Amino acid sequence: MNTQRLPTVVIENVVPTVNGGRQALKRVVGDELLVEADIFKDGHDVMAAVLKWRQVSDKTWREAPMELLINDRWRGSCRLLENGPHEFTIEAWQETWESWRHEWHKKFEAGQRDLGTEIIEGALLLEGAAARAKKNKADTADSGRLLELAAKFRAGDADAVNALADDPEVRVWMEVYADRGAATQLEPAVPVWVDRPAARFAAWYEFFPRSAEGKPEHEGTSTFRTCLGRVDDAKAMGFDVIYFPPIHPIGATKRKGKNNSVTSQPGEPGSPYAIGSAAGGHKAVEPSLGTLKDFDWLVKQIRERGMEVALDFAINCSPDHPYVKEHPEWFFHRPDGTIKFAENPPKRYEDIYPLNFHNENWKALWEEMKSIILFWCEHGVRIFRVDNPHTKPVSFWEWLISGVQAKFPDAIFLSEAFTKPKMMKALAKAGFTQSYSYFTWRTAKWEIEEYFTELTQTEVADYMRANLFPNTPDILPFHLQTGGRPMFMIRAVLATTLSSVYGIYAGFELCENAALPGREEYFDSEKYQFKSRDWNAPGNIKELLTKLNRARQENRALQLYDNLRFHPTTNEAIIFYSKMTPARDSVILVVVNLDPHNVQSGFVEAPVDEFALPPGVADSGYFVEDLLTGERYRWQGRRNYVSLDPHARPAHVLRLER
Amino acid sequence: MNTQRLPTVVIENVVPTVNGGRQALKRVVGDELLVEADIFKDGHDVMAAVLKWRQVSDKTWREAPMELLINDRWRGSCRLLENGPHEFTIEAWQETWESWRHEWHKKFEAGQRDLGTEIIEGALLLEGAAARAKKNKADTADSGRLLELAAKFRAGDADAVNALADDPEVRVWMEVYADRGAATQLEPAVPVWVDRPAARFAAWYEFFPRSAEGKPEHEGTSTFRTCLGRVDDAKAMGFDVIYFPPIHPIGATKRKGKNNSVTSQPGEPGSPYAIGSAAGGHKAVEPSLGTLKDFDWLVKQIRERGMEVALDFAINCSPDHPYVKEHPEWFFHRPDGTIKFAENPPKRYEDIYPLNFHNENWKALWEEMKSIILFWCEHGVRIFRVDNPHTKPVSFWEWLISGVQAKFPDAIFLSEAFTKPKMMKALAKAGFTQSYSYFTWRTAKWEIEEYFTELTQTEVADYMRANLFPNTPDILPFHLQTGGRPMFMIRAVLATTLSSVYGIYAGFELCENAALPGREEYFDSEKYQFKSRDWNAPGNIKELLTKLNRARQENRALQLYDNLRFHPTTNEAIIFYSKMTPARDSVILVVVNLDPHNVQSGFVEAPVDEFALPPGVADSGYFVEDLLTGERYRWQGRRNYVSLDPHARPAHVLRLER
Repeated sequence: MNTQRLPTVVIENVVPTVNGGRQALKRVVGDELLVEADIFKDGHDVMAAVLKWRQVSDKTWREAPMELLINDRWRGSCRLLENGPHEFTIEAWQETWESWRHEWHKKFEAGQRDLGTEIIEGALLLEGAAARAKKNKADTADSGRLLELAAKFRAGDADAVNALADDPEVRVWMEVYADRGAATQLEPAVPVWVDRPAARFAAWYEFFPRSAEGKPEHEGTSTFRTCLGRVDDAKAMGFDVIYFPPIHPIGATKRKGKNNSVTSQPGEPGSPYAIGSAAGGHKAVEPSLGTLKDFDWLVKQIRERGMEVALDFAINCSPDHPYVKEHPEWFFHRPDGTIKFAENPPKRYEDIYPLNFHNENWKALWEEMKSIILFWCEHGVRIFRVDNPHTKPVSFWEWLISGVQAKFPDAIFLSEAFTKPKMMKALAKAGFTQSYSYFTWRTAKWEIEEYFTELTQTEVADYMRANLFPNTPDILPFHLQTGGRPMFMIRAVLATTLSSVYGIYAGFELCENAALPGREEYFDSEKYQFKSRDWNAPGNIKELLTKLNRARQENRALQLYDNLRFHPTTNEAIIFYSKMTPARDSVILVVVNLDPHNVQSGFVEAPVDEFALPPGVADSGYFVEDLLTGERYRWQGRRNYVSLDPHARPAHVLRLER
Repeated sequence: MNTQRLPTVVIENVVPTVNGGRQALKRVVGDELLVEADIFKDGHDVMAAVLKWRQVSDKTWREAPMELLINDRWRGSCRLLENGPHEFTIEAWQETWESWRHEWHKKFEAGQRDLGTEIIEGALLLEGAAARAKKNKADTADSGRLLELAAKFRAGDADAVNALADDPEVRVWMEVYADRGAATQLEPAVPVWVDRPAARFAAWYEFFPRSAEGKPEHEGTSTFRTCLGRVDDAKAMGFDVIYFPPIHPIGATKRKGKNNSVTSQPGEPGSPYAIGSAAGGHKAVEPSLGTLKDFDWLVKQIRERGMEVALDFAINCSPDHPYVKEHPEWFFHRPDGTIKFAENPPKRYEDIYPLNFHNENWKALWEEMKSIILFWCEHGVRIFRVDNPHTKPVSFWEWLISGVQAKFPDAIFLSEAFTKPKMMKALAKAGFTQSYSYFTWRTAKWEIEEYFTELTQTEVADYMRANLFPNTPDILPFHLQTGGRPMFMIRAVLATTLSSVYGIYAGFELCENAALPGREEYFDSEKYQFKSRDWNAPGNIKELLTKLNRARQENRALQLYDNLRFHPTTNEAIIFYSKMTPARDSVILVVVNLDPHNVQSGFVEAPVDEFALPPGVADSGYFVEDLLTGERYRWQGRRNYVSLDPHARPAHVLRLER
């Protein structure tokens, strides 16, 4: 039994934590971290508590006082200033000076004046503080001053001491040199991962470099050196992350043909997800796209435009991948010793060999996987979109991401886990910076409200950030197939304003909607062939996307994630939500007609009480500006009328004028 | 990096746990423990999971299969059979045999017959199971049979193997000898404390032995040898725990007189809470009550009646306590070296010296405190009501209770912490078996429903059990002062049926309600003087208490704690609730008129869907018997009419007839 280990104070129900503190919270550089906890001890002493935080590499803690809210609930906050791993804890103790003062006043106010003992006790506390000040050599002056005050106590009568007890100078000294000898510190500390801003605020544009120019198929492939036009067009629209599907050598054995055909014709490029050929594996580039040097050049060009590259990390090996020969033990085997291809019976994927993450030589495999990410980090890439992470062990990702971020804290990982909700959350807790989401299929008002309330207003927001994609190369959802251009506009407005981070797969801006019959797959999917396109085809929604991206850049409310709030409307086809900064210097109201076919009208209920408007203004009238049209509206009070024609203008994105 | 330590399966959101598994759940011998958790892994394999449990002293785990409910949520249960510390965990793994079977059927049903490889894989799995069976020497027969089955596989064609795959024998073998080589076990295990039944089901009767006979003051004290009449009367009413306020020597210095007077007259007995005199301290008995031998005799008498004794553990020392001389360092001191008495400025309690639990010699103090409890355990006492535990460190109680229960797992501790809610819960989590509660002051329907819903239907029920006292020697609540005999009846019904454990302080059955003006203190409180009483005074409610205790004994639904459910009524003065066993073999419905002055009538909504009645019976009519009057009522459907006269019959306690 050791005094140091027996807590004198109970500190519990700490919020926020993830999995009881076993995994890290996520925040972004510059964020204020608000912490609450139940803090109490036996008896009736006055308590004090501080929030302590640091970068994990730091030796010393920084600290800020916590305040008692009500009913033993305390709150404190700190600001997180650096990218990388942090932690916080709470220290609490009995405030002996304030306890003395509290008792003193109760006695004094009850008329007691025979308080010699109490005066000496007060002097002893001051002298104790003086001794603590002296320990810290820089503060001998403080120590001296405290001893002077103690002497005044000892020399004073009850009235003199009563005045001194409330002297602000005395109280400040006694706070600075509080006796924390019996303090209790929450253990273990709570981990917090602090990301750079792009982890939460970014607009992604995905395209296949080989079809960047959109030229006719017979003219062959575009390359790293010829795809810059697509980058510039994305920049003009306001995107800032350029995301490439795998750029590695594509296998030849069992290469897939057009529309996922199991055989390919000579000249067909194959799926970039069947990785590995004689030209190399995950650390090489497909020769038809150029060389590694060409890729480095492209990365630099993109950086110079104020944008950055995201690469796809797909742990798929074609039968031609160098690993097959170098590490056959990393794969699954049939009884006859041959390597197993991927299957989802009765379907066979003979162009892909899955890896066995629990093979005998698993450690070498895991290290090799991590080295792939580190390799591309060395080549200037810091964002990785991970393909199907839910088919690899969660513990593998926790290990890989923490290992990479120890070297590159600015590395960002997007989880492409379109799977069951608990696995999606487990991957986020394991360290993924962002996650794909069910947004892609949520179209009804009630389901958007329910899903995004969970994502942004519950503890899920502490560890998972949904990166909203209205389409992907794998998914052309039915509503885009049938809803026409209005539906593309609706989904663009929702993706850009429901979350602070979103992305589109190229062709979305052209309202491409040709699908395989009865499926959510693109017809003539770019995954299996070159794709010819007019990137400025009539009917495109590039101007809308440009305006939406500009609105996001210019309005900080749209750059935050957990500030989404839904508000009532009188029409189930009209959804209404707000995003506001805590200081209310940026307030955005979004109204969307979810019906792509008909004009919808109704009243929306504006959260005027939260606008921080001067008294009376909400009722007398306030102005909102539509960032999509430049029009100004005078709104009055809570209920305001809207009418939205999906063909002309399916949404308002309104900025509150102050 | 070690394979064993990297989990292959995610096991999280385990329910129930207390403080994330850092403190023990509470259950009672014979309880079924239901456990749920999210369990999933990467990929699409078939999973299996077992709930494992054991007494902490056991080496081996017992286990029971868990079943998948929906959406990666699994459930399992076990029955807890011994008093003492237990723990549970969960083990989960990929079911290789079921995964093989699942793939086999998909291929076979798709018409594939070229399945030689798959057949060999199945045979290899059977042979692996045979090897595992062989390891366990007792099962060489099993091993042989598994090898036979493997041989059948190898010899069979696709159709033969398809039949064998579903053979129940094969499936049972493969479940028994499942390959758990890559299983993941939840760590650390979750602690569960299993109490004996009296921890949850008991009726306490508190009286001061010195006034047991109720004789006139001048006739002096009753003793251990003369208080048995009171015990027998309590037994006749159906109580089973006899709880004594402190029985230790009472200090003489600054002894309190009648009605808490700071001076006492010669012959006044003093407060039993001012413990310690020349006759001894907490391990001695007050000489005027008898000797330790007399006490032992009384304990035996009470045991022989099928009842048991609860002692008060009040860590208060009078200035005459032996500790004051033997261990002055255990107390708080003034600057002049004298010992501090208790204060709540401007009030002074000069008859009591508080102990300093963080003094330099704290370890000796803590050990001494524990030795007091162990001393009384040796004298046959197993129940301790702890006075004001919230003024001592929570960590002290956690240490003391676990230390005592390691020797005496049948020890029961009741926390008398009438303090803020979080401290009450912290003490329960720290190990207290039961807790006093705010029931004493909850009288309105909404507040009873709100409070008891929290106590019995949230996670609070996993660690805290409210022992309901309508009165205590310290508390005569205002509603009892003003509500007359009907209010005593109302409170008796509520205390006996809202919780499975309750108690009264003697005099309650006589409807004693004389208070100090404007206070919730008894007039002529027994704490400070002898008390003369007619224990059969007219107007007593002993018959009601007897019927209520009998109803509790005869109806198992009233012996459970977390089965309380409230149901709607049409009158806010009428509260309606049920208690049922899981099997519905005991169903009790309680209707109480909370208004002590007026007849109240209205409709109550019976939860007929939960009665497990044969189809149609609920609507055609069912019978309920009032256990307080013997009357039978025919109820029909959900809505039924009640009318309760508080003077004659303020409540129905109804048993559903089957």
